[in-house]
Amino acid sequence: MVPLLDDERIDYLLAEDNMHIIQSPTVFSFSLDAVLLAHFAYVPIRKGNILDLCTGNGVIPLLMSRRTNAMITGVEIQERLAGMAERSITLNGLGNQLSIIRGDLKEMKDTLGHSAFDVVTCNPPYFPTPKTTEHNKNEYLTIARHEVYCSLEDVVKACKLHVRPGGKVSMVHRPGRLIDILTLFRKHNLEPKRLQFVYPKRNKDANMILIEGTRDGKADLKILPPLYIYEDDDTYTKEAEDIIYGRE
Amino acid sequence: MVPLLDDERIDYLLAEDNMHIIQSPTVFSFSLDAVLLAHFAYVPIRKGNILDLCTGNGVIPLLMSRRTNAMITGVEIQERLAGMAERSITLNGLGNQLSIIRGDLKEMKDTLGHSAFDVVTCNPPYFPTPKTTEHNKNEYLTIARHEVYCSLEDVVKACKLHVRPGGKVSMVHRPGRLIDILTLFRKHNLEPKRLQFVYPKRNKDANMILIEGTRDGKADLKILPPLYIYEDDDTYTKEAEDIIYGRE
Repeated sequence: MVPLLDDERIDYLLAEDNMHIIQSPTVFSFSLDAVLLAHFAYVPIRKGNILDLCTGNGVIPLLMSRRTNAMITGVEIQERLAGMAERSITLNGLGNQLSIIRGDLKEMKDTLGHSAFDVVTCNPPYFPTPKTTEHNKNEYLTIARHEVYCSLEDVVKACKLHVRPGGKVSMVHRPGRLIDILTLFRKHNLEPKRLQFVYPKRNKDANMILIEGTRDGKADLKILPPLYIYEDDDTYTKEAEDIIYGRE
Repeated sequence: MVPLLDDERIDYLLAEDNMHIIQSPTVFSFSLDAVLLAHFAYVPIRKGNILDLCTGNGVIPLLMSRRTNAMITGVEIQERLAGMAERSITLNGLGNQLSIIRGDLKEMKDTLGHSAFDVVTCNPPYFPTPKTTEHNKNEYLTIARHEVYCSLEDVVKACKLHVRPGGKVSMVHRPGRLIDILTLFRKHNLEPKRLQFVYPKRNKDANMILIEGTRDGKADLKILPPLYIYEDDDTYTKEAEDIIYGRE
Protein backbone atom coordinates (compact mmCIF):
# COMPACT_ATOMS: atom_id res chain seq x y z
CA MET A 1 0.00 0.00 0.00
CA VAL A 2 0.96 3.63 -0.42
CA PRO A 3 1.57 5.90 2.55
CA LEU A 4 -1.08 8.38 3.68
CA LEU A 5 -0.18 11.79 5.14
CA ASP A 6 -2.02 13.67 7.88
CA ASP A 7 -5.78 13.46 7.36
CA GLU A 8 -5.57 11.82 3.93
CA ARG A 9 -7.88 8.92 3.28
CA ILE A 10 -8.51 6.51 0.43
CA ASP A 11 -11.92 7.05 -1.18
CA TYR A 12 -13.64 5.04 -3.83
CA LEU A 13 -13.45 6.91 -7.13
CA LEU A 14 -15.39 4.29 -9.04
CA ALA A 15 -16.67 1.64 -6.68
CA GLU A 16 -17.88 -0.66 -9.44
CA ASP A 17 -14.44 -0.64 -11.04
CA ASN A 18 -12.61 -0.85 -7.74
CA MET A 19 -10.79 2.41 -8.51
CA HIS A 20 -9.53 4.47 -5.59
CA ILE A 21 -8.25 7.98 -5.00
CA ILE A 22 -6.39 9.66 -2.15
CA GLN A 23 -8.19 12.69 -0.79
CA SER A 24 -8.02 15.01 2.15
CA PRO A 25 -10.72 17.27 3.50
CA THR A 26 -8.14 19.94 4.34
CA VAL A 27 -5.92 19.66 1.26
CA PHE A 28 -8.01 18.59 -1.74
CA SER A 29 -11.07 16.55 -2.61
CA PHE A 30 -12.32 16.20 -6.16
CA SER A 31 -15.56 17.82 -7.24
CA LEU A 32 -18.42 16.88 -9.50
CA ASP A 33 -17.02 19.39 -11.99
CA ALA A 34 -13.95 17.23 -12.58
CA VAL A 35 -16.06 14.09 -12.97
CA LEU A 36 -18.24 15.77 -15.59
CA LEU A 37 -15.24 17.13 -17.48
CA ALA A 38 -13.56 13.71 -17.56
CA HIS A 39 -16.75 12.36 -19.14
CA PHE A 40 -17.39 15.30 -21.48
CA ALA A 41 -13.91 15.51 -23.00
CA TYR A 42 -13.24 13.75 -26.27
CA VAL A 43 -10.44 11.19 -25.85
CA PRO A 44 -8.72 9.05 -28.47
CA ILE A 45 -9.48 5.42 -27.63
CA ARG A 46 -6.44 3.43 -28.68
CA LYS A 47 -3.43 5.69 -28.55
CA GLY A 48 -2.25 9.28 -28.29
CA ASN A 49 -1.19 11.78 -25.66
CA ILE A 50 -3.43 13.64 -23.27
CA LEU A 51 -2.47 16.49 -20.96
CA ASP A 52 -4.47 17.49 -17.88
CA LEU A 53 -3.58 20.89 -16.45
CA CYS A 54 -4.41 21.86 -12.85
CA THR A 55 -4.76 18.16 -12.23
CA GLY A 56 -5.06 18.43 -8.42
CA ASN A 57 -5.13 14.93 -6.94
CA GLY A 58 -5.24 13.44 -10.44
CA VAL A 59 -8.94 12.73 -10.56
CA ILE A 60 -9.33 13.55 -14.27
CA PRO A 61 -6.42 11.40 -15.50
CA LEU A 62 -7.62 8.55 -13.29
CA LEU A 63 -11.17 8.73 -14.65
CA MET A 64 -10.10 9.17 -18.27
CA SER A 65 -7.81 6.15 -18.06
CA ARG A 66 -10.93 3.97 -18.20
CA ARG A 67 -11.89 5.38 -21.61
CA THR A 68 -8.55 5.50 -23.40
CA ASN A 69 -5.23 3.75 -23.81
CA ALA A 70 -3.54 7.09 -24.54
CA MET A 71 -0.76 8.26 -22.25
CA ILE A 72 -2.03 10.87 -19.82
CA THR A 73 0.16 13.50 -18.19
CA GLY A 74 -1.10 15.63 -15.31
CA VAL A 75 0.48 18.94 -14.31
CA GLU A 76 0.00 20.30 -10.80
CA ILE A 77 1.71 23.30 -9.22
CA GLN A 78 1.16 22.27 -5.58
CA GLU A 79 3.70 19.68 -4.53
CA ARG A 80 1.45 18.26 -1.86
CA LEU A 81 -1.39 17.65 -4.36
CA ALA A 82 0.95 16.28 -7.02
CA GLY A 83 2.16 13.81 -4.42
CA MET A 84 -1.38 12.68 -3.73
CA ALA A 85 -1.95 12.21 -7.46
CA GLU A 86 1.22 10.16 -7.84
CA ARG A 87 0.32 7.91 -4.95
CA SER A 88 -3.19 7.43 -6.33
CA ILE A 89 -1.69 6.34 -9.65
CA THR A 90 0.46 3.82 -7.83
CA LEU A 91 -2.49 2.70 -5.76
CA ASN A 92 -4.46 1.86 -8.91
CA GLY A 93 -1.50 0.27 -10.72
CA LEU A 94 -1.66 2.84 -13.54
CA GLY A 95 2.00 3.90 -13.53
CA ASN A 96 2.49 2.73 -17.11
CA GLN A 97 -0.20 5.05 -18.48
CA LEU A 98 -0.41 8.03 -16.13
CA SER A 99 2.26 10.41 -14.93
CA ILE A 100 2.33 13.62 -12.92
CA ILE A 101 4.61 16.61 -13.36
CA ARG A 102 5.04 19.03 -10.48
CA GLY A 103 5.25 22.45 -12.04
CA ASP A 104 3.71 25.70 -13.21
CA LEU A 105 1.53 25.39 -16.32
CA LYS A 106 2.93 28.73 -17.52
CA GLU A 107 6.43 27.27 -17.69
CA MET A 108 5.99 23.85 -19.23
CA LYS A 109 7.32 24.62 -22.71
CA ASP A 110 10.79 23.18 -22.13
CA THR A 111 9.44 20.12 -20.34
CA LEU A 112 6.52 19.27 -22.63
CA GLY A 113 7.46 20.99 -25.90
CA HIS A 114 4.71 22.58 -27.95
CA SER A 115 1.83 21.03 -29.91
CA ALA A 116 2.67 17.62 -28.46
CA PHE A 117 -0.78 16.57 -27.21
CA ASP A 118 -3.89 15.35 -28.97
CA VAL A 119 -6.13 16.49 -26.15
CA VAL A 120 -5.73 18.95 -23.28
CA THR A 121 -8.18 19.10 -20.39
CA CYS A 122 -8.37 21.52 -17.49
CA ASN A 123 -10.56 22.16 -14.48
CA PRO A 124 -9.01 25.52 -13.61
CA PRO A 125 -9.38 27.69 -10.51
CA TYR A 126 -12.74 29.42 -10.91
CA PHE A 127 -12.49 32.52 -8.83
CA PRO A 128 -10.60 35.78 -9.29
CA THR A 129 -7.68 36.20 -6.96
CA PRO A 130 -8.87 37.43 -3.58
CA LYS A 131 -6.97 40.11 -1.75
CA THR A 132 -4.26 38.56 0.35
CA THR A 133 -6.17 39.43 3.50
CA GLU A 134 -9.19 37.53 2.23
CA HIS A 135 -7.28 34.39 1.26
CA ASN A 136 -8.82 31.20 2.43
CA LYS A 137 -6.80 30.40 5.51
CA ASN A 138 -6.21 27.06 3.88
CA GLU A 139 -3.55 27.86 1.29
CA TYR A 140 -4.01 24.55 -0.54
CA LEU A 141 -7.67 25.24 -1.21
CA THR A 142 -7.08 28.91 -2.00
CA ILE A 143 -4.60 28.00 -4.74
CA ALA A 144 -6.82 25.27 -6.17
CA ARG A 145 -9.91 27.48 -6.28
CA HIS A 146 -8.62 30.99 -6.97
CA GLU A 147 -6.57 32.47 -9.78
CA VAL A 148 -3.56 32.89 -7.52
CA TYR A 149 -0.91 31.33 -9.73
CA CYS A 150 -2.68 31.48 -13.09
CA SER A 151 -5.40 33.55 -14.71
CA LEU A 152 -7.96 32.05 -17.06
CA GLU A 153 -5.97 33.47 -19.94
CA ASP A 154 -2.79 31.80 -18.68
CA VAL A 155 -4.66 28.49 -18.71
CA VAL A 156 -6.06 28.98 -22.21
CA LYS A 157 -2.62 30.02 -23.50
CA ALA A 158 -1.04 26.89 -22.02
CA CYS A 159 -3.75 24.71 -23.58
CA LYS A 160 -3.09 26.30 -26.95
CA LEU A 161 0.68 25.90 -26.61
CA HIS A 162 0.54 22.19 -25.85
CA VAL A 163 -2.29 20.94 -28.07
CA ARG A 164 -1.49 19.98 -31.66
CA PRO A 165 -3.27 21.70 -34.59
CA GLY A 166 -6.63 19.98 -34.94
CA GLY A 167 -6.40 18.71 -31.36
CA LYS A 168 -9.08 19.37 -28.74
CA VAL A 169 -9.13 21.37 -25.53
CA SER A 170 -11.87 20.81 -22.93
CA MET A 171 -12.58 22.87 -19.87
CA VAL A 172 -15.19 23.24 -17.14
CA HIS A 173 -16.09 26.61 -15.66
CA ARG A 174 -18.92 28.71 -14.22
CA PRO A 175 -21.62 30.43 -16.32
CA GLY A 176 -20.47 33.87 -15.16
CA ARG A 177 -17.24 33.31 -17.11
CA LEU A 178 -18.90 32.04 -20.30
CA ILE A 179 -18.16 35.17 -22.31
CA ASP A 180 -14.56 35.31 -21.08
CA ILE A 181 -13.93 31.67 -21.89
CA LEU A 182 -15.47 31.84 -25.37
CA THR A 183 -13.57 35.04 -26.14
CA LEU A 184 -10.25 33.66 -24.85
CA PHE A 185 -10.67 30.36 -26.69
CA ARG A 186 -11.27 32.17 -29.95
CA LYS A 187 -8.48 34.69 -29.28
CA HIS A 188 -6.01 31.84 -28.91
CA ASN A 189 -7.25 29.90 -31.94
CA LEU A 190 -9.10 27.26 -29.96
CA GLU A 191 -12.40 27.50 -31.84
CA PRO A 192 -15.30 26.51 -29.54
CA LYS A 193 -17.11 23.51 -31.02
CA ARG A 194 -19.16 21.93 -28.24
CA LEU A 195 -20.81 23.68 -25.32
CA GLN A 196 -22.94 22.00 -22.65
CA PHE A 197 -24.75 23.62 -19.76
CA VAL A 198 -25.16 21.77 -16.49
CA TYR A 199 -28.25 22.51 -14.40
CA PRO A 200 -28.52 21.45 -10.75
CA LYS A 201 -32.25 20.76 -11.32
CA ARG A 202 -34.98 21.40 -13.84
CA ASN A 203 -36.19 25.02 -13.78
CA LYS A 204 -32.97 26.25 -12.17
CA ASP A 205 -30.31 28.37 -13.84
CA ALA A 206 -27.21 26.56 -15.07
CA ASN A 207 -24.33 26.40 -12.58
CA MET A 208 -21.61 24.87 -14.73
CA ILE A 209 -20.43 24.99 -18.34
CA LEU A 210 -18.48 22.40 -20.28
CA ILE A 211 -16.66 23.61 -23.37
CA GLU A 212 -14.54 21.94 -26.03
CA GLY A 213 -12.60 23.76 -28.73
CA THR A 214 -10.46 22.62 -31.64
CA ARG A 215 -7.13 24.26 -32.31
CA ASP A 216 -7.30 26.12 -35.64
CA GLY A 217 -10.83 24.74 -36.16
CA LYS A 218 -13.58 26.35 -38.22
CA ALA A 219 -16.41 28.23 -36.51
CA ASP A 220 -19.26 25.74 -35.97
CA LEU A 221 -20.51 25.74 -32.39
CA LYS A 222 -22.99 23.14 -31.16
CA ILE A 223 -25.01 23.61 -27.98
CA LEU A 224 -25.48 20.09 -26.61
CA PRO A 225 -28.60 18.96 -24.75
CA PRO A 226 -28.54 20.19 -21.16
CA LEU A 227 -27.38 17.96 -18.33
CA TYR A 228 -29.44 17.88 -15.14
CA ILE A 229 -27.81 16.63 -11.94
CA TYR A 230 -30.67 16.20 -9.47
CA GLU A 231 -34.31 15.22 -9.72
CA ASP A 232 -36.83 17.30 -7.82
CA ASP A 233 -36.56 14.83 -4.92
CA ASP A 234 -32.77 15.43 -4.66
CA THR A 235 -31.77 12.04 -6.01
CA TYR A 236 -29.37 11.96 -8.94
CA THR A 237 -30.88 11.92 -12.40
CA LYS A 238 -30.28 8.71 -14.32
CA GLU A 239 -27.89 10.56 -16.61
CA ALA A 240 -25.83 12.07 -13.79
CA GLU A 241 -25.73 8.76 -11.94
CA ASP A 242 -24.43 6.95 -15.03
CA ILE A 243 -21.62 9.48 -15.34
CA ILE A 244 -20.75 9.56 -11.63
CA TYR A 245 -20.71 5.77 -11.34
CA GLY A 246 -18.80 5.40 -14.59
CA ARG A 247 -21.48 3.38 -16.34
CA GLU A 248 -20.97 4.93 -19.74
CA MET B 1 -61.53 46.16 -42.89
CA VAL B 2 -58.02 46.80 -44.20
CA PRO B 3 -57.08 46.03 -47.81
CA LEU B 4 -55.09 42.89 -48.65
CA LEU B 5 -52.52 42.81 -51.48
CA ASP B 6 -51.75 39.89 -53.80
CA ASP B 7 -51.58 36.64 -51.82
CA GLU B 8 -51.82 38.27 -48.41
CA ARG B 9 -54.14 36.71 -45.89
CA ILE B 10 -55.27 37.42 -42.35
CA ASP B 11 -54.03 34.82 -39.90
CA TYR B 12 -54.82 34.44 -36.24
CA LEU B 13 -51.85 35.61 -34.18
CA LEU B 14 -53.49 34.83 -30.86
CA ALA B 15 -56.78 33.06 -31.42
CA GLU B 16 -57.80 33.20 -27.78
CA ASP B 17 -57.32 36.97 -27.75
CA ASN B 18 -58.84 37.46 -31.18
CA MET B 19 -55.60 39.08 -32.38
CA HIS B 20 -54.86 38.92 -36.11
CA ILE B 21 -51.88 39.52 -38.38
CA ILE B 22 -51.48 40.00 -42.10
CA GLN B 23 -49.12 37.51 -43.67
CA SER B 24 -48.10 36.33 -47.10
CA PRO B 25 -46.39 33.08 -48.04
CA THR B 26 -44.34 34.86 -50.70
CA VAL B 27 -43.53 38.08 -48.83
CA PHE B 28 -43.31 37.39 -45.10
CA SER B 29 -44.74 35.12 -42.44
CA PHE B 30 -43.68 35.32 -38.84
CA SER B 31 -41.63 32.56 -37.26
CA LEU B 32 -41.55 30.85 -33.90
CA ASP B 33 -38.34 32.78 -33.23
CA ALA B 34 -40.24 36.07 -33.11
CA VAL B 35 -42.90 34.62 -30.82
CA LEU B 36 -40.27 33.38 -28.38
CA LEU B 37 -38.42 36.70 -28.41
CA ALA B 38 -41.64 38.64 -27.75
CA HIS B 39 -42.15 36.42 -24.70
CA PHE B 40 -38.51 36.39 -23.53
CA ALA B 41 -37.89 40.14 -23.63
CA TYR B 42 -38.32 42.13 -20.48
CA VAL B 43 -40.95 44.85 -20.98
CA PRO B 44 -42.01 47.63 -18.61
CA ILE B 45 -45.66 46.99 -17.73
CA ARG B 46 -47.24 50.39 -17.27
CA LYS B 47 -45.32 52.91 -19.36
CA GLY B 48 -42.17 53.52 -21.33
CA ASN B 49 -40.86 53.26 -24.88
CA ILE B 50 -39.96 50.10 -26.73
CA LEU B 51 -38.23 49.81 -30.10
CA ASP B 52 -38.39 46.74 -32.31
CA LEU B 53 -35.81 46.68 -35.11
CA CYS B 54 -36.25 44.47 -38.21
CA THR B 55 -39.90 44.32 -37.27
CA GLY B 56 -41.08 42.63 -40.48
CA ASN B 57 -44.85 42.38 -40.43
CA GLY B 58 -44.90 43.72 -36.88
CA VAL B 59 -45.37 40.42 -35.09
CA ILE B 60 -43.19 41.34 -32.11
CA PRO B 61 -44.84 44.73 -31.39
CA LEU B 62 -48.27 43.10 -31.77
CA LEU B 63 -47.43 40.31 -29.32
CA MET B 64 -45.70 42.60 -26.83
CA SER B 65 -48.68 44.94 -26.77
CA ARG B 66 -50.49 42.34 -24.67
CA ARG B 67 -47.86 42.58 -21.93
CA THR B 68 -47.22 46.29 -21.72
CA ASN B 69 -48.82 49.70 -21.98
CA ALA B 70 -45.54 51.18 -23.23
CA MET B 71 -45.46 52.78 -26.66
CA ILE B 72 -43.89 50.41 -29.20
CA THR B 73 -42.17 51.56 -32.37
CA GLY B 74 -41.23 49.10 -35.12
CA VAL B 75 -38.60 49.83 -37.78
CA GLU B 76 -38.66 47.94 -41.07
CA ILE B 77 -36.56 48.63 -44.16
CA GLN B 78 -38.85 46.89 -46.66
CA GLU B 79 -41.75 49.13 -47.58
CA ARG B 80 -43.98 46.22 -48.48
CA LEU B 81 -43.49 44.58 -45.05
CA ALA B 82 -43.84 47.88 -43.19
CA GLY B 83 -47.17 48.30 -44.97
CA MET B 84 -48.31 44.88 -43.79
CA ALA B 85 -47.31 45.80 -40.24
CA GLU B 86 -49.21 49.09 -40.38
CA ARG B 87 -52.34 47.43 -41.67
CA SER B 88 -52.10 44.74 -38.97
CA ILE B 89 -51.92 47.47 -36.33
CA THR B 90 -55.05 49.05 -37.77
CA LEU B 91 -56.75 45.66 -38.01
CA ASN B 92 -56.22 45.12 -34.27
CA GLY B 93 -57.13 48.67 -33.29
CA LEU B 94 -53.69 49.30 -31.78
CA GLY B 95 -52.88 52.56 -33.55
CA ASN B 96 -52.64 54.46 -30.27
CA GLN B 97 -49.87 52.26 -28.93
CA LEU B 98 -47.96 50.85 -31.91
CA SER B 99 -46.34 52.64 -34.83
CA ILE B 100 -44.14 51.61 -37.73
CA ILE B 101 -41.29 53.55 -39.31
CA ARG B 102 -40.18 52.63 -42.81
CA GLY B 103 -36.44 53.03 -42.81
CA ASP B 104 -32.92 51.67 -42.43
CA LEU B 105 -31.93 50.84 -38.84
CA LYS B 106 -28.46 52.20 -39.55
CA GLU B 107 -29.89 55.67 -40.21
CA MET B 108 -32.44 56.20 -37.47
CA LYS B 109 -30.49 58.63 -35.31
CA ASP B 110 -32.18 61.77 -36.61
CA THR B 111 -35.61 60.19 -36.49
CA LEU B 112 -35.40 58.43 -33.13
CA GLY B 113 -32.63 60.32 -31.34
CA HIS B 114 -30.27 58.35 -29.13
CA SER B 115 -30.84 56.61 -25.79
CA ALA B 116 -34.60 57.22 -26.11
CA PHE B 117 -35.88 53.68 -25.47
CA ASP B 118 -36.19 51.59 -22.34
CA VAL B 119 -36.11 48.35 -24.29
CA VAL B 120 -34.94 47.41 -27.78
CA THR B 121 -35.81 44.06 -29.35
CA CYS B 122 -34.64 42.56 -32.63
CA ASN B 123 -35.09 39.35 -34.59
CA PRO B 124 -32.38 40.10 -37.14
CA PRO B 125 -31.55 38.39 -40.43
CA TYR B 126 -29.65 35.23 -39.46
CA PHE B 127 -27.58 34.35 -42.46
CA PRO B 128 -24.46 35.92 -43.95
CA THR B 129 -25.08 37.70 -47.22
CA PRO B 130 -25.16 35.19 -50.06
CA LYS B 131 -23.43 35.92 -53.34
CA THR B 132 -25.80 37.81 -55.62
CA THR B 133 -26.12 34.77 -57.85
CA GLU B 134 -27.25 32.71 -54.90
CA HIS B 135 -29.85 35.18 -53.67
CA ASN B 136 -33.18 33.69 -52.92
CA LYS B 137 -35.18 34.51 -56.02
CA ASN B 138 -37.66 36.04 -53.65
CA GLU B 139 -36.07 39.38 -52.75
CA TYR B 140 -38.44 39.97 -49.83
CA LEU B 141 -37.39 36.78 -48.10
CA THR B 142 -33.72 37.22 -48.98
CA ILE B 143 -33.64 40.61 -47.28
CA ALA B 144 -35.52 39.38 -44.23
CA ARG B 145 -33.29 36.33 -43.76
CA HIS B 146 -29.84 37.41 -44.95
CA GLU B 147 -27.51 40.17 -43.88
CA VAL B 148 -28.10 42.09 -47.09
CA TYR B 149 -28.82 45.52 -45.65
CA CYS B 150 -27.34 45.10 -42.18
CA SER B 151 -24.69 42.97 -40.52
CA LEU B 152 -25.09 41.63 -37.00
CA GLU B 153 -22.77 44.38 -35.82
CA ASP B 154 -24.95 47.03 -37.51
CA VAL B 155 -27.91 45.66 -35.56
CA VAL B 156 -26.07 45.62 -32.23
CA LYS B 157 -24.77 49.15 -32.82
CA ALA B 158 -28.28 50.41 -33.54
CA CYS B 159 -29.59 48.71 -30.38
CA LYS B 160 -26.87 50.40 -28.35
CA LEU B 161 -27.54 53.80 -29.94
CA HIS B 162 -31.24 53.77 -29.17
CA VAL B 163 -31.43 52.13 -25.75
CA ARG B 164 -31.00 54.27 -22.67
CA PRO B 165 -28.22 53.54 -20.12
CA GLY B 166 -29.56 50.76 -17.92
CA GLY B 167 -32.10 49.78 -20.58
CA LYS B 168 -32.35 46.28 -22.01
CA VAL B 169 -31.70 44.83 -25.46
CA SER B 170 -33.11 41.42 -26.42
CA MET B 171 -32.32 39.40 -29.49
CA VAL B 172 -32.91 35.96 -30.94
CA HIS B 173 -30.32 34.21 -33.10
CA ARG B 174 -28.81 30.85 -34.00
CA PRO B 175 -26.32 28.93 -31.82
CA GLY B 176 -23.63 29.18 -34.50
CA ARG B 177 -23.52 32.94 -33.88
CA LEU B 178 -23.43 32.73 -30.07
CA ILE B 179 -19.81 33.81 -29.78
CA ASP B 180 -20.29 36.66 -32.25
CA ILE B 181 -23.36 37.93 -30.48
CA LEU B 182 -21.83 37.78 -26.99
CA THR B 183 -18.67 39.47 -28.24
CA LEU B 184 -20.56 42.21 -30.09
CA PHE B 185 -22.90 42.87 -27.16
CA ARG B 186 -19.96 43.31 -24.84
CA LYS B 187 -18.00 45.36 -27.38
CA HIS B 188 -20.88 47.82 -27.60
CA ASN B 189 -21.48 47.99 -23.83
CA LEU B 190 -24.60 45.84 -23.84
CA GLU B 191 -23.52 43.47 -21.08
CA PRO B 192 -25.17 40.05 -21.58
CA LYS B 193 -27.32 39.25 -18.52
CA ARG B 194 -29.76 36.50 -19.53
CA LEU B 195 -29.16 33.71 -22.01
CA GLN B 196 -31.64 30.96 -22.84
CA PHE B 197 -31.17 28.06 -25.21
CA VAL B 198 -34.11 26.67 -27.15
CA TYR B 199 -34.09 22.97 -28.03
CA PRO B 200 -36.44 21.49 -30.63
CA LYS B 201 -36.72 18.32 -28.50
CA ARG B 202 -35.05 16.67 -25.55
CA ASN B 203 -31.69 15.13 -26.46
CA LYS B 204 -31.28 17.37 -29.52
CA ASP B 205 -28.79 20.21 -29.88
CA ALA B 206 -30.14 23.73 -29.35
CA ASN B 207 -31.34 25.50 -32.50
CA MET B 208 -32.05 28.96 -31.14
CA ILE B 209 -30.62 31.37 -28.56
CA LEU B 210 -32.36 34.17 -26.72
CA ILE B 211 -30.15 36.84 -25.23
CA GLU B 212 -30.77 39.97 -23.18
CA GLY B 213 -28.15 42.55 -22.29
CA THR B 214 -28.19 45.72 -20.21
CA ARG B 215 -26.56 48.87 -21.52
CA ASP B 216 -23.58 49.72 -19.32
CA GLY B 217 -24.49 46.79 -17.03
CA LYS B 218 -22.10 44.85 -14.83
CA ALA B 219 -20.89 41.39 -15.89
CA ASP B 220 -23.28 38.84 -14.34
CA LEU B 221 -24.58 36.35 -16.89
CA LYS B 222 -27.34 33.89 -16.03
CA ILE B 223 -28.05 30.81 -18.13
CA LEU B 224 -31.79 30.25 -17.83
CA PRO B 225 -33.42 26.82 -17.80
CA PRO B 226 -33.65 25.42 -21.32
CA LEU B 227 -36.84 25.71 -23.35
CA TYR B 228 -38.03 22.65 -25.27
CA ILE B 229 -40.48 23.11 -28.14
CA TYR B 230 -41.69 19.61 -28.99
CA GLU B 231 -42.34 16.45 -27.05
CA ASP B 232 -41.03 13.19 -28.48
CA ASP B 233 -44.41 12.66 -30.16
CA ASP B 234 -44.11 15.99 -32.02
CA THR B 235 -46.80 17.76 -30.02
CA TYR B 236 -45.86 21.07 -28.40
CA THR B 237 -44.53 20.94 -24.86
CA LYS B 238 -46.79 22.56 -22.30
CA GLU B 239 -44.31 25.41 -21.93
CA ALA B 240 -44.06 26.12 -25.67
CA GLU B 241 -47.82 25.88 -26.07
CA ASP B 242 -48.40 28.41 -23.29
CA ILE B 243 -46.06 30.85 -25.02
CA ILE B 244 -47.42 30.27 -28.53
CA TYR B 245 -51.03 30.61 -27.42
CA GLY B 246 -50.21 33.61 -25.25
CA ARG B 247 -51.33 31.98 -22.01
CA GLU B 248 -48.61 33.53 -19.91
